[in-house]
Amino acid sequence: MTNHGNMYGPDFTFLGIERCDLDIPSSYADADVVIVGAPIDSGTSHRSGAKFGPQAIRGGDYLPHDAERPHLALRIDALKEMKVVDAGDLLMPGSDLVASLEVLAQATEKISRAGAIPIILGGDHSIASADVAGIARHRGMGKISMIHFDAHADTGEDQWGALVGHGTPMRRLIDTGTVRGDRFLQLGLRGYWPDAKTLDWMRDQRMRSYEMTEIHHRGLNTVLDESFAILTNECDGVFLSVDIDVVDPGMAPGTGTPEPGGMTSRELLESVRRICLELPIVGIDVVEVAPAFDSADITAILANRVVLEALSAIAKRRSGTKYSPTQNLLDR
Amino acid sequence: MTNHGNMYGPDFTFLGIERCDLDIPSSYADADVVIVGAPIDSGTSHRSGAKFGPQAIRGGDYLPHDAERPHLALRIDALKEMKVVDAGDLLMPGSDLVASLEVLAQATEKISRAGAIPIILGGDHSIASADVAGIARHRGMGKISMIHFDAHADTGEDQWGALVGHGTPMRRLIDTGTVRGDRFLQLGLRGYWPDAKTLDWMRDQRMRSYEMTEIHHRGLNTVLDESFAILTNECDGVFLSVDIDVVDPGMAPGTGTPEPGGMTSRELLESVRRICLELPIVGIDVVEVAPAFDSADITAILANRVVLEALSAIAKRRSGTKYSPTQNLLDR
Amino acid sequence: MTNHGNMYGPDFTFLGIERCDLDIPSSYADADVVIVGAPIDSGTSHRSGAKFGPQAIRGGDYLPHDAERPHLALRIDALKEMKVVDAGDLLMPGSDLVASLEVLAQATEKISRAGAIPIILGGDHSIASADVAGIARHRGMGKISMIHFDAHADTGEDQWGALVGHGTPMRRLIDTGTVRGDRFLQLGLRGYWPDAKTLDWMRDQRMRSYEMTEIHHRGLNTVLDESFAILTNECDGVFLSVDIDVVDPGMAPGTGTPEPGGMTSRELLESVRRICLELPIVGIDVVEVAPAFDSADITAILANRVVLEALSAIAKRRSGTKYSPTQNLLDR
Amino acid sequence: MTNHGNMYGPDFTFLGIERCDLDIPSSYADADVVIVGAPIDSGTSHRSGAKFGPQAIRGGDYLPHDAERPHLALRIDALKEMKVVDAGDLLMPGSDLVASLEVLAQATEKISRAGAIPIILGGDHSIASADVAGIARHRGMGKISMIHFDAHADTGEDQWGALVGHGTPMRRLIDTGTVRGDRFLQLGLRGYWPDAKTLDWMRDQRMRSYEMTEIHHRGLNTVLDESFAILTNECDGVFLSVDIDVVDPGMAPGTGTPEPGGMTSRELLESVRRICLELPIVGIDVVEVAPAFDSADITAILANRVVLEALSAIAKRRSGTKYSPTQNLLDR
Amino acid sequence: MTNHGNMYGPDFTFLGIERCDLDIPSSYADADVVIVGAPIDSGTSHRSGAKFGPQAIRGGDYLPHDAERPHLALRIDALKEMKVVDAGDLLMPGSDLVASLEVLAQATEKISRAGAIPIILGGDHSIASADVAGIARHRGMGKISMIHFDAHADTGEDQWGALVGHGTPMRRLIDTGTVRGDRFLQLGLRGYWPDAKTLDWMRDQRMRSYEMTEIHHRGLNTVLDESFAILTNECDGVFLSVDIDVVDPGMAPGTGTPEPGGMTSRELLESVRRICLELPIVGIDVVEVAPAFDSADITAILANRVVLEALSAIAKRRSGTKYSPTQNLLDR
Amino acid sequence: MTNHGNMYGPDFTFLGIERCDLDIPSSYADADVVIVGAPIDSGTSHRSGAKFGPQAIRGGDYLPHDAERPHLALRIDALKEMKVVDAGDLLMPGSDLVASLEVLAQATEKISRAGAIPIILGGDHSIASADVAGIARHRGMGKISMIHFDAHADTGEDQWGALVGHGTPMRRLIDTGTVRGDRFLQLGLRGYWPDAKTLDWMRDQRMRSYEMTEIHHRGLNTVLDESFAILTNECDGVFLSVDIDVVDPGMAPGTGTPEPGGMTSRELLESVRRICLELPIVGIDVVEVAPAFDSADITAILANRVVLEALSAIAKRRSGTKYSPTQNLLDR
Repeated sequence: MTNHGNMYGPDFTFLGIERCDLDIPSSYADADVVIVGAPIDSGTSHRSGAKFGPQAIRGGDYLPHDAERPHLALRIDALKEMKVVDAGDLLMPGSDLVASLEVLAQATEKISRAGAIPIILGGDHSIASADVAGIARHRGMGKISMIHFDAHADTGEDQWGALVGHGTPMRRLIDTGTVRGDRFLQLGLRGYWPDAKTLDWMRDQRMRSYEMTEIHHRGLNTVLDESFAILTNECDGVFLSVDIDVVDPGMAPGTGTPEPGGMTSRELLESVRRICLELPIVGIDVVEVAPAFDSADITAILANRVVLEALSAIAKRRSGTKYSPTQNLLDR
Repeated sequence: MTNHGNMYGPDFTFLGIERCDLDIPSSYADADVVIVGAPIDSGTSHRSGAKFGPQAIRGGDYLPHDAERPHLALRIDALKEMKVVDAGDLLMPGSDLVASLEVLAQATEKISRAGAIPIILGGDHSIASADVAGIARHRGMGKISMIHFDAHADTGEDQWGALVGHGTPMRRLIDTGTVRGDRFLQLGLRGYWPDAKTLDWMRDQRMRSYEMTEIHHRGLNTVLDESFAILTNECDGVFLSVDIDVVDPGMAPGTGTPEPGGMTSRELLESVRRICLELPIVGIDVVEVAPAFDSADITAILANRVVLEALSAIAKRRSGTKYSPTQNLLDR
Repeated sequence: MTNHGNMYGPDFTFLGIERCDLDIPSSYADADVVIVGAPIDSGTSHRSGAKFGPQAIRGGDYLPHDAERPHLALRIDALKEMKVVDAGDLLMPGSDLVASLEVLAQATEKISRAGAIPIILGGDHSIASADVAGIARHRGMGKISMIHFDAHADTGEDQWGALVGHGTPMRRLIDTGTVRGDRFLQLGLRGYWPDAKTLDWMRDQRMRSYEMTEIHHRGLNTVLDESFAILTNECDGVFLSVDIDVVDPGMAPGTGTPEPGGMTSRELLESVRRICLELPIVGIDVVEVAPAFDSADITAILANRVVLEALSAIAKRRSGTKYSPTQNLLDR
Repeated sequence: MTNHGNMYGPDFTFLGIERCDLDIPSSYADADVVIVGAPIDSGTSHRSGAKFGPQAIRGGDYLPHDAERPHLALRIDALKEMKVVDAGDLLMPGSDLVASLEVLAQATEKISRAGAIPIILGGDHSIASADVAGIARHRGMGKISMIHFDAHADTGEDQWGALVGHGTPMRRLIDTGTVRGDRFLQLGLRGYWPDAKTLDWMRDQRMRSYEMTEIHHRGLNTVLDESFAILTNECDGVFLSVDIDVVDPGMAPGTGTPEPGGMTSRELLESVRRICLELPIVGIDVVEVAPAFDSADITAILANRVVLEALSAIAKRRSGTKYSPTQNLLDR
Repeated sequence: MTNHGNMYGPDFTFLGIERCDLDIPSSYADADVVIVGAPIDSGTSHRSGAKFGPQAIRGGDYLPHDAERPHLALRIDALKEMKVVDAGDLLMPGSDLVASLEVLAQATEKISRAGAIPIILGGDHSIASADVAGIARHRGMGKISMIHFDAHADTGEDQWGALVGHGTPMRRLIDTGTVRGDRFLQLGLRGYWPDAKTLDWMRDQRMRSYEMTEIHHRGLNTVLDESFAILTNECDGVFLSVDIDVVDPGMAPGTGTPEPGGMTSRELLESVRRICLELPIVGIDVVEVAPAFDSADITAILANRVVLEALSAIAKRRSGTKYSPTQNLLDR
Repeated sequence: MTNHGNMYGPDFTFLGIERCDLDIPSSYADADVVIVGAPIDSGTSHRSGAKFGPQAIRGGDYLPHDAERPHLALRIDALKEMKVVDAGDLLMPGSDLVASLEVLAQATEKISRAGAIPIILGGDHSIASADVAGIARHRGMGKISMIHFDAHADTGEDQWGALVGHGTPMRRLIDTGTVRGDRFLQLGLRGYWPDAKTLDWMRDQRMRSYEMTEIHHRGLNTVLDESFAILTNECDGVFLSVDIDVVDPGMAPGTGTPEPGGMTSRELLESVRRICLELPIVGIDVVEVAPAFDSADITAILANRVVLEALSAIAKRRSGTKYSPTQNLLDR
């Protein structure tokens, strides 16, 4: 099912971790996390390039690619404490997006059923409609809540007439009952999309969408506290979807539809840490990294850190040890 | 008077809005806002390139250029609620800056007399001495107050011996009585210019210049509150001048004289929103976008959003509807 | 059928020429040439980005976009001597390449039936399987010969299992009988693709493929002379397909699958001139310009010049006037 | 001892200040500050390029290079109030790092003994082990405390088996007794390095390392207040070492080992100002600026401003005049 | 008259040679060559940026800036064999091009009268109308012939109504009688400018313009041979004007109006060598280097080499020694 | 001895070929070619960055990294016809160049003794002094002749006082008797280095150095013919050293010391093909690829093709089959 290594360019794993093969169950039977690439960008409405996201995220790190990453603040090494394996890229040609998305849904279902958390490296955001759906095939429709970081709501009714595309995945997930609208949280929205009709639909689904203005005025931690209460109500797992364009394009230029006025990198990393420390994560995707528009790889490296931050916080949560952000680092 | 479309490169309007012709009064008779390009950079003291600013700002957007832009936070579409037309670029050769600036002054006077708000896309900041002057010819000397975002005071006595240049326009406006010194607000100054003699002149004019340090320590909203009281005292209109270099070069690299330590994009956008919601705007310029130094168009896109933020807030103010930044977006 | 202007970004025509609408026959009834954009890149096997090719080619010129272009060497202005109109971009979403290609085939058929030469701005090379097919629906199967500039043969049997893709269009054209294998010329091939099996298939089709080595050793003009004899034998029209990667990546970096050791820009332009002066052209495509990988727009500008060179030579051929490349320019 | 001007590229001084020659004592006998370049990058563990840091920092400014820089917020011109001279670059070939570092140690010792503050422009951070050592040869072992801004602790035991390298200088300084571990402050750490064993060593040395998380949650000013108390205890001088990667790579991409989630430029500049206003500085280095990875020179300009901020605050401190950041700029 | 060093950025001379001051005749009394910068770009019709050309050309070299440059092929060091000094940049603000050009004309007249060859580093090509005029004030009207490398004829009647601009200098030189039309040679023209009317004017002046097509078909050496005969007829000096855009933009992207299909770098360097070896040069300008559009400084370095090639060939010519390009280098 | 994979960045092999381990003789016992990375750049005299050359060359290809590369012109797949394995990078820290070079010499000696041809991916050119030396330890001093493509002679006596550096390796090889001066060929030299004294030394060694001028005037094939006669006289093996800067910087900008006026990519590839078809190659290095200065990876891809061209020609030579460059490709 998976490609041998990266679909594009040289073959290597996320920071040098062990490879698994989704067609060989034993290769990931006891994995805690399975990373998989979804290298497709034919769902984009503007700049393409996100199909090179998986390789950029896997390799975006200046440290030795030795499968070790001790998290400085959390004082834990997720790659050693957990079994994290890399299934390589799925073979997802851009010419038929519907078919390629089904390949992805089957992959995340497999991983989920094996008891592991899938972390999907996009690719454009159209993949969310499939990667979450795959997990829901295992965990049940409406049983997964969603926390979604993005500049855009991605709730379009269609995109140039097609149901698939990076502007519509969240609509698909709600329309199909995969995720309940009232368990769907969004943070970081801004800009000039979508139109009123779509916003009304979102309201009718009882979605909760925190536009940057609200975050700016109420504070990120307040908003996260409020979110967490919603997410765990009647749901037994949370999916975290991070569109890298939630960060201000000034700090993360390597993306396809950059909208000024976003979060700082620091704010995103702190949010991801809290979410994965405090919530029962069942899947993660990190999407819309388009290396061709990046500057000195800073966006790719940020996306790499989003994945590591999530992994580290999951490992910390599982370890049962304590963490205080205001404690002297060397005494943690 | 105006060029056919962009002076440089392909011919298109701001996000696809309707074209007007300043020589045909009927084409903008009932316009609320007229956008016009001032593509000149021979007033720069360092890197040139801002003459390509107008086309970069007009086109800096990943959404369809369909003359629709529903503002997510304000829940209003300025391009539909107001009549906003684009007069294209003025023909402003760089070889004779004085002559070119007079062309601009005549254009903004025309627009202002037609009852519309001119929004001028620069170009280097030397254009401010002309675009404000043109409006003052209509509205009266000393009747317009000024709120000016910039890393630099732009109050130089001269520039290499010439009165015109991007380092002197604010001095010209005050020296000529176009704007009263004590109704001249500046935000975001920092760095190593001008010298003490010029600062003393500024003090003598009773200008109010908020250096970044003061904003950092007192808070942006405090400073804006204080400003607003001054601006509306005895003046019946406010001109907003945004030099994109007020934003930190880390977030807005595409400019000619980048000075580290500036505002974030978010802070600029929030400021512009408040200003245009709360003050009677009579003109706006957005200047110093130099695409050759940009990275993935992020500075151009930011400048585009500054224009849209202003337009949206003006439309919101005119609509008379309410807005609370802390209210749930979907309930606004 | 066509989009309003560019599918991506601002709306403008090729160098400011008149717009036509393919749904309104009168708008191009008497056109000599109709330019149309095919902004799709989901057929790429590596770097995407060619969907921004049409806008880059249309706008890649430093001269005023005034619909005038007097060719210095040929002493003719094709944009004035002929009626050349721009139909804008076709709406070709990347998510379903097969469906989008059919849109293109219908468009070139329409243009061809209207008596005009279609010039298609790609987009990746998968579009050739459709744009030539559309013309053949009008002119007859096997009646068009092909001259194809490329680093790659593009004769793959399939691409990741799909028949469409930028590695397979030439196979499709021959397999379907659209173009006869023995009337299919290729120039500029090099590198490490395809494998022996595919080369044997090409030989069996009696294709004539000039690898760069042969051109280097025998001379470009010799090779062109030999080609021309083949192309006009039993065919009444020639389609010219230019993949910009035929030029050395050192001179044309803005493309997706760059193969070192190619032609110079000069050689490509001289070839296009000769072809359009000496052969009965019935259609042209210029493909694989990927602006995200370009440097100072040099590849886009080169592609713009390929289009202009072709247009100028067609106009010269139609004018019946003489041209000698060795004559004093000012006496031509 | 010093090279003639820049070791790489054209010969010019920091913003046009006067040149001195370290072999001619009279040329810097009465200097307050001597700037010297340490153009070496063979201590890097990843991207090289920092050997071009000195020329980039010296020249990174859009104002006339006229040896004048009136600081807007502090209302003082350090280049006029103090004697600041530039010794050019030291000749530090990369092929033998140990030998080159000794050249640097001798230089800072000379400068320190002459009563001036050395400001060293790196180069990679391996230089800190030498530049501080040189000053300690004059001022005494353990008598200088250290305040170190960095994403990384730089306390590695070795680097690929070598004691020198940009990952080890802080360990060397403590191991040799040059700086006491309990007088060694670090701000801005984050990411995935070093491992637990090294962190334990740091704790045992009683270092105080503020990870970004702690700064984020406790506030930068709180942390600085706490730091200042430690630094001046039993030490008579403070060395300030600024690795530019302490700033978020989104704002300072031009560096070799970028770690997301850092300070803003504004926060670094405010910190440097407070430090140099409130503490007895005896030396400064600014390191890890790698121009090849920069965007529009923003990182180089930021590093230039770090040097100027430090110089200005030192001059302000020496002037004995008052400064209030919340006072009206024009009244300061 | 001249600025202190570079008008923009740090102050340094061409490869470290000695400085002169045009206001102090003794400083260049015995100079063979005086280099001077003309940093202006307000004459450009498209991309600006050439005002940074002088500093880019002066510093564009990876070797030590030690005022030594032994030419490998010619086996001579022009910087040691001749007295070559650098007058720095002239103060040429862009806001008044006419006034700035007069400053340049006075400078080249001074240099010429002092018996030295002026080499002017542009700046845009509008400077040619002044730098040649200044020399003609000394040597006489119509006594200097011109050899001009460019993609463009630069013989426009006006530019947006102004007589000055980078599209008109050659017309000005002929109109004013500074250079005779029949002693005006052009090489490398191509593209789509100017129109027929201007070409007719050029023919009427009896100019000789070698379009790239003619050079391609007749050979560069043939064309040069033919040129040399014309240039020395009734003229006692030759001015060499090199617009860097004569080279293909694929090899020299750092310029403002790039026209594909040009010379290779090798061809330009060989041409300059022959010209300066075989003709009595009285002045040179190298123009239109716009660093903001360059890639890894390759265009700036090429322009630097054009200057060095000219200097070396002039020195070789003056030395009276022989040179054969086909002789073993080590035996030359 | 070797690192695990790339010393910098992710771990992958040249185009996906099999890995070997130099410490495990069986892993390369029957190899025809062993590729090894020498990732060091502390020998550079200007821009560093070549230490990232090995990973850039290994991965610089848009085709699937599947260990297959059928050469189109030669009709052979070297990666299938021969056993080519990749030993990964040697651990070569930059801080001690002498020690790191000895690691390399031991590696090439090992490979050579195992009967395989070492292909070394640099790294700066200082590595040539070691990689050739290692082979000579096996094959005998003075028994290997050298063919060296470069813009620079690299025969400096020392570099800033050190014997090692990228300006001196060829001197070291001759001084030590590793390669006889009269069996040392150089092609592509140009520019302004070295000085006469060094050129005299080269002449005294009876080196044969073809400057670009001579190649330009006599023709590349003529020069190669002449070279081949010398190389095989009394030597039983030829080492091919390719400094990528032999190609014009316009086509290969990604290097540290770019010298305009070089070969085209086509000329280099044709030369490498002829050399490896006609001469008994015993080792190859490809050096000075500095990705930080590259544009769209074109230089890295060119270097990748140099390696593949060499491999393909070696395989063709071993196959004993015929090859004619002028034969129809499909009949070869």
